[in-house]
Amino acid sequence: MSLQLTILGCHSATPRVNAHPTSQLLQIKNHHFLIDCGEGTQVQMRKYKVSFAKIKHIFISHLHGDHFFGLIGLISTFGLLNRETKLHIYGPKGLREIMELQLAISQSRLAYPLIFHELHSEKSELIFEDKNVLVRTIPLKHRVYTNGFLFQEKKALRKLNSKVVATYPEIEICDYHNIKKGKDFVLKSGEIIKNEILTLDSPKPLSYAYCSDTSYAPEIVPIIKGVDLLYHEATFLEDRSELAKKTGHSTALEAGKIAKEAKVKLLILGHYSNRYRDLKAFQREAQEAFQNTILAIEGSTFEVT
Amino acid sequence: MSLQLTILGCHSATPRVNAHPTSQLLQIKNHHFLIDCGEGTQVQMRKYKVSFAKIKHIFISHLHGDHFFGLIGLISTFGLLNRETKLHIYGPKGLREIMELQLAISQSRLAYPLIFHELHSEKSELIFEDKNVLVRTIPLKHRVYTNGFLFQEKKALRKLNSKVVATYPEIEICDYHNIKKGKDFVLKSGEIIKNEILTLDSPKPLSYAYCSDTSYAPEIVPIIKGVDLLYHEATFLEDRSELAKKTGHSTALEAGKIAKEAKVKLLILGHYSNRYRDLKAFQREAQEAFQNTILAIEGSTFEVT
Repeated sequence: MSLQLTILGCHSATPRVNAHPTSQLLQIKNHHFLIDCGEGTQVQMRKYKVSFAKIKHIFISHLHGDHFFGLIGLISTFGLLNRETKLHIYGPKGLREIMELQLAISQSRLAYPLIFHELHSEKSELIFEDKNVLVRTIPLKHRVYTNGFLFQEKKALRKLNSKVVATYPEIEICDYHNIKKGKDFVLKSGEIIKNEILTLDSPKPLSYAYCSDTSYAPEIVPIIKGVDLLYHEATFLEDRSELAKKTGHSTALEAGKIAKEAKVKLLILGHYSNRYRDLKAFQREAQEAFQNTILAIEGSTFEVT
Repeated sequence: MSLQLTILGCHSATPRVNAHPTSQLLQIKNHHFLIDCGEGTQVQMRKYKVSFAKIKHIFISHLHGDHFFGLIGLISTFGLLNRETKLHIYGPKGLREIMELQLAISQSRLAYPLIFHELHSEKSELIFEDKNVLVRTIPLKHRVYTNGFLFQEKKALRKLNSKVVATYPEIEICDYHNIKKGKDFVLKSGEIIKNEILTLDSPKPLSYAYCSDTSYAPEIVPIIKGVDLLYHEATFLEDRSELAKKTGHSTALEAGKIAKEAKVKLLILGHYSNRYRDLKAFQREAQEAFQNTILAIEGSTFEVT
């Protein structure tokens, strides 16, 4: 069981050589989720060998250019590559209109279904669920309507302790599913065999919270409580805390405070302003509040097992 | 007097690492014209040290993504950089709607005037003129409404031959303008001093024709006749001439034929399909029709003096 996050871009605002705007690939269970899609993301995907075909779900946090200007290009490229697989896009209301207008005017006919899930709720909502994974929105505080996303593995069924089970000939294969779900087993004699004797706990489900862009928003803490990995924007350092407030962004220290309050395992910082040359300063500042902090670096991969 | 063309991207369709979609910078007289603006153009501009502030006119040939998906990012970046100078954009009808929708939904307020000149004529038309330069459309044959652009210097006034002029004390400074315009001078005695004695010819005005994307279209020859520099798309080689026809593109040989028929000075090929690894083959094929052919290469600059 593992969760893998690859940083395709982690800078804010205007794209530059080696300072690409936001995009990430999250591999969780059998999914390859793309999170945000700034200009140039498709080239970053090629550079870091991200399979285009495996992307079936794209999550867009908000409609500022550095988070979605690469989406129309990616959608078009999928079309040119004769994709046939459905593509689901989750993002704020308005995204569909922008994409469909461009496809219509350029007379692009996609051979694959493009399915928009437009978001407008101000409350956290479940936007994706299958048998392995849940995705919920994390309402953020920015200048425009913005969501972070919480990706959670579902807890797997308990594992049969086969050595123990083998000692009870009365337990048949058709009983296994109920036992894995946690039920005790009742022998014909009436004796109850407790589930914890028959099974082993399944691994703890992993979780990842993506929070960008946002002001310091302690109200998100209950939603992201205890996640294994938190990516939190840190556009500025405390030297520009007024600018952070004004523009709806966080400082590295504020990101550290959120990580601490939410008791996450690991904090990853990103969305750095181009004003700063020394990214290490972001790490140092966040560590004043939360020690286990690292920096997102383009092309780096973080794995949680 | 010189004209300088810098290739920011010269590949077709999907952007890749080191194979950027179309964009060019043309420096002609005091202008810095941007021609087409595929995804990633703003990063290419930074890479090749193109001054953002000097761009006041952008020309978009057509609304396929590889020619305009970088425009919204560039417009937004100009906004973030607090640009105040007017920006003129020339392109097909529909471009304005696409740009304005994205600016509105992202709540971007630009501090500079953005002026759209939407094109819909099927005939060549004059779309820009000042005292030094003319720009005309070149109607092309593609799958969607497409224009190439012809950039022409205006012929400068003739130069005074000051040594000769000095021998006629009757000629005063206030006469110079008429003489530079080509008029003869009449002495009080009634004697006529021919203009060609008093002046030297001004340099021949330079011209550049940009033709992408297009099928083989000999009907453009009269418009681009004798230009110093012709950029003509060559998406395919003759081995894929059927595909070229079907997709509204040209082969290298066809580009060579157009250059030959139009008697241009130099042909530059570009818009290569990603199917080809050996770009030299494009040059060789075009040279079967027109010897003076070179390849557009990302980052290269062509100067005509």
